[in-house]
Amino acid sequence: MASSTELESRLLEAITGIQAIDVHSHVPFDAPVAASLRELLGYHYFTELAHSAGVSKEAVAPEAADEAMLSAMVQALPTLDNTVQHGWLMEIARELFGFTGGSLTRENWEVLADSVRKEAAEPGRERKVLSASGIEKVFLTNAFDDDLSEVDREIFVPCLRADALVFRFAEADVRKRLEKVTGSNVGSAEALTAALEKLLERFVRSGAASVAISLPPDLRAYPVVPGDLETAVGKAAGGKPLSAAEGQTLRCGTLFALCDTCRNFKLPLQVMFGAVRAAYRHGVPQGTDLPQAGESLRALMPLFNSFPEVTFCVSALSDSQAQELASYGWIVRNVVVSGHWWYDGLPAYIERDLTARLQSVPKTKLIGYYSDMYKLEFGLPKFNMYRRVLARVLARDYVEGGRGSEPQAVEIARLLLRSNARRIFGV
Amino acid sequence: MASSTELESRLLEAITGIQAIDVHSHVPFDAPVAASLRELLGYHYFTELAHSAGVSKEAVAPEAADEAMLSAMVQALPTLDNTVQHGWLMEIARELFGFTGGSLTRENWEVLADSVRKEAAEPGRERKVLSASGIEKVFLTNAFDDDLSEVDREIFVPCLRADALVFRFAEADVRKRLEKVTGSNVGSAEALTAALEKLLERFVRSGAASVAISLPPDLRAYPVVPGDLETAVGKAAGGKPLSAAEGQTLRCGTLFALCDTCRNFKLPLQVMFGAVRAAYRHGVPQGTDLPQAGESLRALMPLFNSFPEVTFCVSALSDSQAQELASYGWIVRNVVVSGHWWYDGLPAYIERDLTARLQSVPKTKLIGYYSDMYKLEFGLPKFNMYRRVLARVLARDYVEGGRGSEPQAVEIARLLLRSNARRIFGV
Amino acid sequence: MASSTELESRLLEAITGIQAIDVHSHVPFDAPVAASLRELLGYHYFTELAHSAGVSKEAVAPEAADEAMLSAMVQALPTLDNTVQHGWLMEIARELFGFTGGSLTRENWEVLADSVRKEAAEPGRERKVLSASGIEKVFLTNAFDDDLSEVDREIFVPCLRADALVFRFAEADVRKRLEKVTGSNVGSAEALTAALEKLLERFVRSGAASVAISLPPDLRAYPVVPGDLETAVGKAAGGKPLSAAEGQTLRCGTLFALCDTCRNFKLPLQVMFGAVRAAYRHGVPQGTDLPQAGESLRALMPLFNSFPEVTFCVSALSDSQAQELASYGWIVRNVVVSGHWWYDGLPAYIERDLTARLQSVPKTKLIGYYSDMYKLEFGLPKFNMYRRVLARVLARDYVEGGRGSEPQAVEIARLLLRSNARRIFGV
Repeated sequence: MASSTELESRLLEAITGIQAIDVHSHVPFDAPVAASLRELLGYHYFTELAHSAGVSKEAVAPEAADEAMLSAMVQALPTLDNTVQHGWLMEIARELFGFTGGSLTRENWEVLADSVRKEAAEPGRERKVLSASGIEKVFLTNAFDDDLSEVDREIFVPCLRADALVFRFAEADVRKRLEKVTGSNVGSAEALTAALEKLLERFVRSGAASVAISLPPDLRAYPVVPGDLETAVGKAAGGKPLSAAEGQTLRCGTLFALCDTCRNFKLPLQVMFGAVRAAYRHGVPQGTDLPQAGESLRALMPLFNSFPEVTFCVSALSDSQAQELASYGWIVRNVVVSGHWWYDGLPAYIERDLTARLQSVPKTKLIGYYSDMYKLEFGLPKFNMYRRVLARVLARDYVEGGRGSEPQAVEIARLLLRSNARRIFGV
Repeated sequence: MASSTELESRLLEAITGIQAIDVHSHVPFDAPVAASLRELLGYHYFTELAHSAGVSKEAVAPEAADEAMLSAMVQALPTLDNTVQHGWLMEIARELFGFTGGSLTRENWEVLADSVRKEAAEPGRERKVLSASGIEKVFLTNAFDDDLSEVDREIFVPCLRADALVFRFAEADVRKRLEKVTGSNVGSAEALTAALEKLLERFVRSGAASVAISLPPDLRAYPVVPGDLETAVGKAAGGKPLSAAEGQTLRCGTLFALCDTCRNFKLPLQVMFGAVRAAYRHGVPQGTDLPQAGESLRALMPLFNSFPEVTFCVSALSDSQAQELASYGWIVRNVVVSGHWWYDGLPAYIERDLTARLQSVPKTKLIGYYSDMYKLEFGLPKFNMYRRVLARVLARDYVEGGRGSEPQAVEIARLLLRSNARRIFGV
Repeated sequence: MASSTELESRLLEAITGIQAIDVHSHVPFDAPVAASLRELLGYHYFTELAHSAGVSKEAVAPEAADEAMLSAMVQALPTLDNTVQHGWLMEIARELFGFTGGSLTRENWEVLADSVRKEAAEPGRERKVLSASGIEKVFLTNAFDDDLSEVDREIFVPCLRADALVFRFAEADVRKRLEKVTGSNVGSAEALTAALEKLLERFVRSGAASVAISLPPDLRAYPVVPGDLETAVGKAAGGKPLSAAEGQTLRCGTLFALCDTCRNFKLPLQVMFGAVRAAYRHGVPQGTDLPQAGESLRALMPLFNSFPEVTFCVSALSDSQAQELASYGWIVRNVVVSGHWWYDGLPAYIERDLTARLQSVPKTKLIGYYSDMYKLEFGLPKFNMYRRVLARVLARDYVEGGRGSEPQAVEIARLLLRSNARRIFGV
């Protein structure tokens, strides 16, 4: 096993040298780094754990004063210091802010808070963070009417988030914003399609490389009859209430129209499958969604079948679909298996899923990891977590399992962290 | 890896020194230890395996004579000596009865039978067994009309088993027993609620620390309209047949009323989710239930949402829900992740589930293990099985993974085996 | 860990010496070995991966010329050389054809092609391949009207594939072939039953040891009312269209009748559960089926309950049912857990599933592995893949876990690879 550990260490070193492309994040391009410790500890991964462990919702609410909120969070940390999320925090503190304490305490948190404030004010901080994280480019998640002209395209890649279009078109505000940004009305199915075309054209012109959407586990994607979509769009645009069936028609019809537009613009669609939104009524902000067992990716097959020219980069939230997802990547040409998402992004799951993917999916069809982060600082511990598992799986299963050599293992890592994303998204 | 093994051994030794609280068992408080080898080999884990491997149902039936049954069982053992269940038997024989044979055979089983008989007759045997097992207290599973006055509360903790109330209220015998023990009629929803209050009051007075219920995988928990519950309770109490919808109303209404009462008495509810009862028609007694893939814990979410003040200690029987359960423990404040139950209690599953839980759930929200045993002797091999996996996961994933130190690992073990149970159940 | 590796190596050596029985394959008895490299690279495991990785469907289609197809495949290999499937190819090339290249390239593939052609022409090639693979007998998959008189019964075991009878009885061609081969009409339920009897009698006379069927994940097996079956069979036989309900009645009724006939002839039924056929519309031939999460083996329970005398050897395609399957083997007497099928046959899944099975299912109720191969050459790498995982699990979990000795581990391997199959199928 000594040799295995040495091999693993060598692989990890080589892997750490690969500049990653992070294909999915929620980083705000105009405020990409944390301005304060509050912005780090306010990440829902921490507030939801603290709340789950007993801290009141109010104590960690966005409205709470910094001092009170931070002090409540710091007090809660000992109840959750077993988690990988806590590990991320300490790795950020150590690696990006020179924090030397072994844990964050009442006595030392203000030291870290000072460092965060100080570092945040340094010019070019975002590049320094990215460089320390081994990340070259970070995809954004943009609302359809985001102004993309100010995006720093050397490090950021715009990406249209399409959830509102597909799931909230019946809301007057969404339609109004859509009409405003596309300069066209959206009162008919045809008009809606035209608006989508204009939208994507604008995004592509601004350097967008992808469309992203989160689909609920109980969605059933099916092609709708054009006349039915016309009726549903018409009613929605007219502010009339839709029946359940009409609502489904509207969602599926818009989703298919979106895929059609993706095809026209050769844009890959990133599909995040399986989050049940607002499942936990008492959760903190962004801490109310859950995975759901018992559903199947088969619900998405009509999409994959209907748009063979569109590349779907698919993530699944439920571990019960992990093998299904690998099998889809194995035979379905336009499905790329992407990342290890959220509740499914623990090393325990990553290790097994990655092992299975590397055993069965062409290596050119795997996007290894994305951060899903809200501030750039989180890219470092998240990608490092992935890199460690990747080195282990490549060492123990791929090289020691006799499937390939050490240089080939590094080449696979390069594909998963960088080259596949560059090829698939054209960045 | 040498160091890992040494670390693991040290951790196992430290863990073995922690006196466990066993939060769920079926031990009869008036006959807690096995009086004979028959009572050990009659455990359904053995009879169902022997039957599955080819022994006739009659040969291992409760009605079969000891000599014939034991001899049939002993003959069957070589077909199942690969299983962990067989390992439990041999560990009990060796550790609790000084048995020195490597396996149980036609030639030596009577030696063990003699030891069991002899040891069972020793005064204070139950304390000796518990001491050898490293278990301080064992929760019971009491029928709602059990007489709890004779319970030895130094080592046992009463616990109300609520299945009959929720699922069999329509049976005249259940209602009669309920009326008798509460001294009140249960002819209306209000009266039923009052009866539940009286029941729990009586249990709490007798030192009960918890209510437990086993919920089937196809249950859909939803709050019922009061008027509907009134109708359903009235019909059931009147001995009239209920429609399918009324039956559901009755079950869900009673379940919600039970949770409400738990809230009033600050009693945690232990939920065992997912056993399909009597699925296998030809099984031996207690050997007819199975897990079921394809369902989701989401069915229970209305309970968790409706009673934020009630702590739900949740176990799931299907491995397909393992990640879901960890995610619930991660964000849902009143969900505690509890144990590794039955078909899901194999080391193969425990290792992965425990790894994921320790990576993502606050350590204060995990109950590591419970025995589910019918005789005290089984606590030893079952808890030892868990302790070995716990030591391995803490060594290999937690300490070697860099998330914490060896003393911190021991502290986590103490929480999982003892302190969390003491805090959550107030024992 | 050094000792573990030594133990593992010793076990692997002992395991490799056990002559395996391969209970499920698609080998054509009249052309069991590959006549050309095309017949090796034409295996759907390779064409589907190449297509998935970007090769056009036409380039690898059965109609494509050898030279063009092979050259396209060889060009695609570098995109999928991370997979275990690629590993099978190289192991075959090396072990069965003396190929010395590390990979197959434009420069060297013709060398391999020559070897395949040359070796294929050697008399007794099939015995040589089997001997090199450590396989004694291979089960076939025979259409109900296959002529079995030419089967070399020293190495092959006929096996009736029943899918067409159960799922395509409404097709005139199937009925006509059935009438022809049984010499009886099939216009009524009774006549259909009689035809099934004749069929199985003929198969048993020809040395058949089993019936095999692939059941879709959404099948719900239930016993049908005789009158309903009569109506359905009558309509189908009369060429009249069946309603959805009648179609289900026909399928379930025929399935139950088939099980009844299996009981009469004491033939085990091999059930492959869970393939969604033709799910991926654009796949290459045999590369369009997928597993499906979210379903349960419970759908088959009425079969297991209704025919306690029939042995069902069950495989499940979805990893989400892996624990369920082990639990069924654990308590359901007439369920044997069989192999690691297709999308679920990766070492990543085999290791965990095998570990759980060996921890909980009587060792006499496990069929370790079958090849599912189309040409005999694939038995070698596939069984070797399984043997390596088996050695590892027996070493690390069984022997080092303290459940048994090294000789006992070898004995378990013998049961899984050979003796159980011989006992269960009577070969």
